[in-house]
Amino acid sequence: MDAWRTSIANSDDTGIWVRGYDIPSLMTQKSFADMVFLLHQGRLPADAERRLIDAILVAVADHGAGAPSCAATRLVASGNRQSLSAAVAAGILAIGDEHGGAGSACIEMISAGLALAKRESLSIAEAACRTVEDAKANRKRLAGLGHRVHSKDPRTDVLFEMAESGGVAGDGIAFMRAVESEAKERIKPLPINIDGALAAVLHDLGFPPPFGKLIFIIGRVAGLTAEAAEEYQREKAMRIRIPVQYDGEPPRRVE
Amino acid sequence: MDAWRTSIANSDDTGIWVRGYDIPSLMTQKSFADMVFLLHQGRLPADAERRLIDAILVAVADHGAGAPSCAATRLVASGNRQSLSAAVAAGILAIGDEHGGAGSACIEMISAGLALAKRESLSIAEAACRTVEDAKANRKRLAGLGHRVHSKDPRTDVLFEMAESGGVAGDGIAFMRAVESEAKERIKPLPINIDGALAAVLHDLGFPPPFGKLIFIIGRVAGLTAEAAEEYQREKAMRIRIPVQYDGEPPRRVE
Amino acid sequence: MDAWRTSIANSDDTGIWVRGYDIPSLMTQKSFADMVFLLHQGRLPADAERRLIDAILVAVADHGAGAPSCAATRLVASGNRQSLSAAVAAGILAIGDEHGGAGSACIEMISAGLALAKRESLSIAEAACRTVEDAKANRKRLAGLGHRVHSKDPRTDVLFEMAESGGVAGDGIAFMRAVESEAKERIKPLPINIDGALAAVLHDLGFPPPFGKLIFIIGRVAGLTAEAAEEYQREKAMRIRIPVQYDGEPPRRVE
Amino acid sequence: MDAWRTSIANSDDTGIWVRGYDIPSLMTQKSFADMVFLLHQGRLPADAERRLIDAILVAVADHGAGAPSCAATRLVASGNRQSLSAAVAAGILAIGDEHGGAGSACIEMISAGLALAKRESLSIAEAACRTVEDAKANRKRLAGLGHRVHSKDPRTDVLFEMAESGGVAGDGIAFMRAVESEAKERIKPLPINIDGALAAVLHDLGFPPPFGKLIFIIGRVAGLTAEAAEEYQREKAMRIRIPVQYDGEPPRRVE
Repeated sequence: MDAWRTSIANSDDTGIWVRGYDIPSLMTQKSFADMVFLLHQGRLPADAERRLIDAILVAVADHGAGAPSCAATRLVASGNRQSLSAAVAAGILAIGDEHGGAGSACIEMISAGLALAKRESLSIAEAACRTVEDAKANRKRLAGLGHRVHSKDPRTDVLFEMAESGGVAGDGIAFMRAVESEAKERIKPLPINIDGALAAVLHDLGFPPPFGKLIFIIGRVAGLTAEAAEEYQREKAMRIRIPVQYDGEPPRRVE
Repeated sequence: MDAWRTSIANSDDTGIWVRGYDIPSLMTQKSFADMVFLLHQGRLPADAERRLIDAILVAVADHGAGAPSCAATRLVASGNRQSLSAAVAAGILAIGDEHGGAGSACIEMISAGLALAKRESLSIAEAACRTVEDAKANRKRLAGLGHRVHSKDPRTDVLFEMAESGGVAGDGIAFMRAVESEAKERIKPLPINIDGALAAVLHDLGFPPPFGKLIFIIGRVAGLTAEAAEEYQREKAMRIRIPVQYDGEPPRRVE
Repeated sequence: MDAWRTSIANSDDTGIWVRGYDIPSLMTQKSFADMVFLLHQGRLPADAERRLIDAILVAVADHGAGAPSCAATRLVASGNRQSLSAAVAAGILAIGDEHGGAGSACIEMISAGLALAKRESLSIAEAACRTVEDAKANRKRLAGLGHRVHSKDPRTDVLFEMAESGGVAGDGIAFMRAVESEAKERIKPLPINIDGALAAVLHDLGFPPPFGKLIFIIGRVAGLTAEAAEEYQREKAMRIRIPVQYDGEPPRRVE
Repeated sequence: MDAWRTSIANSDDTGIWVRGYDIPSLMTQKSFADMVFLLHQGRLPADAERRLIDAILVAVADHGAGAPSCAATRLVASGNRQSLSAAVAAGILAIGDEHGGAGSACIEMISAGLALAKRESLSIAEAACRTVEDAKANRKRLAGLGHRVHSKDPRTDVLFEMAESGGVAGDGIAFMRAVESEAKERIKPLPINIDGALAAVLHDLGFPPPFGKLIFIIGRVAGLTAEAAEEYQREKAMRIRIPVQYDGEPPRRVE
């Protein structure tokens, strides 16, 4: 088998390098948010960039044991006490386009909207209007808007203000704000949720769509490890049995 | 079903709190390493404590695509392009006592050694000597010592120096240094590896044994997401087929 | 929380029922292939139907440790010896549209082709011709045709002959044969592979597209458990390290 | 990298062999239960052996959506609609010593008990008595006895009667019956549950302890695929949110 090629990390008997930087230097001079940026963009971030990565990782780490990711971790921790890895992995598996992963679709929507603006020489507001009308006509949900729990997500403003004060706010944030405004006028009030906020920020920091899901995974894992640890400490194995209502075939005989 | 109880996170229509702190405050004033500490200890860390968490997360994030965790992520990314979560989860599953998880066993060894010292009024050096003699007599490996690639792990000194200059080095580090010294005299030179180093530091920061594995999982996930992203970007699906040598039964007929 | 509703299985203090049949009766009178059919279709199969399910499960169970699913299982078994479940789960995660899951896309293609024939009053051969021309024009791969290892998949004929002699071959098999024939004429010889064969058979047995992937998962798990068991028995933990060629940034200094 | 060695399966351009038998022959002449036996024991089973494998696979496939394995599959299917593999894998991860995997510990208990009988020239009843007294003295649970739902597991008698009428019942079943009888006398009535029943049968069929968990995984996967399919068909994404009661720190300010 040919060796696999990679541009991420490298090690020999004396050292380890990530994107060319040796690990001891990174350990003493940089934070984990720097490392996340470096691993995915190939360069170290400026301060304002790093602060936004930190803020997103903090924002998504956990907001309750009942979310599908946290609950999957707890179910596995309940049935299988041999492997903390298994419990954490199950929580990650619950992350998809529907839970935690909408940021990816939203970065795609932003990129498509801005490409449309450029291609047809539209303003950002005009491109946002077209995006909203298009979703309305096709009865599609607008990625990054609305939330089933929070009428106004408290995390959105924080991210946008940090991006603006740090001088890294760009067309992505402008576009999402325009989409929110157009949606309010043409559909109903749909505030930008955390997925939409992080998507706008990540777009402006130069990340591609998949990173909208990947950064959620990285941040959420810290919540999942805490959920697994609490389940092991506070609860007996097999304490969880979900109540079920059977509505299928009545008893019948094998012929 | 009774509601599940938890002391980690809480949310309502207007806010999200982790361990009682509201998320917007954490986002603007704290880093992800603070959040990891908070989630698992229930309090925010001091600066020196946070820097060590950062250093450990940076240290373990990645050191090459060929390790079992990274390779499992790439294999799943090769066969299943529908779910980045699946690729990352597979990498986590490869983390166990043998790969990335030895920190847990090492915190247990440190705790047992220090408990022995206390119980029998031994010095740390005497307890370390007993630990080494015991491992030698029972032909058991000493957790946290030796490495199959690095003759001297470059990350160990960095962590210990940071702990000492930050004033958080305690009996855990002292014990591991004594074990290394006793092992050299009684068995052979076995330098403290990254698992042993992070175990000593985590012990001195007050973390229980499972966290030795959990912090490796948190840090490594950032490497796994980067490995998955690179596999998607640079490689075709199904490019990987591991070479296999069959040495089983020769062809035979079903009777 | 409302109880979850389900029509699959039910149990109380005295018994367990699947789709209304009590488990002891199923255990004594039926086989696992019957159970797979019952769980997914809600009725017990006729003999010819059960034999085809058995044949598909046997066909996909394993064909070498180097495939992504089997290799992912072995990597996890190499790094994590605490959980056989983790090793098997990693192998399942490698199953996707690209590896083992093409049967789902192929059932969709068959359904679409037969719907086209009905809608436009075409013969099966005409609908197959349109399907092939369409794929050619759009440079799309035809699901279920061609194989990277086998020039002619030995399992295809077996399935089709069993379906025909059992009297359950229908339009799905006819359509796939017509597609193979049209592809040979209009593109190049592309024999029906195992995914295409099982898709045609499953279509004719009344299964929906997702089952094309699900039956592969069920069958393959028996291979994955055997691979995990062999890795535990014959190999040391951590024996696997994939060779890697680093082609990224050269060493540089953190500024 | 050296090629991985394996004695399980083999393929080339023209064929696929498992344990030396070509797949087309197995497909036409053998069932999936035969394949499971072959993959794990290296030989094809006799009829009575195959029937017991079938009965165990049927027995464990599913008994309700609320068990940790099924519930984990449904949670992942609720949050992540991109990958059926992810949903099934999460269900497998919930299988451990506590859920579905007790058969492994029970085969170990049987092997230890019978080894004790041989070593000390005891009768099976005497060895069972020692096993029960030992568990009582050390306040350990007896593997394979008792059940939290069924006062008498309806599946146990079925398996034992099949083993006896098929002529494959041996010392494993005799030992488990003796343990049940001793437990009743010395502790309390603890009927043999499905884990104990399948462990006794698998011991008498020559399987090693890990297979007690592996056969549960293989059978349960058919239930998990059905649960995932039902969740996709009947329920909206993200319909599940587990109710949670927060009992941690009250709101406080980041200083």
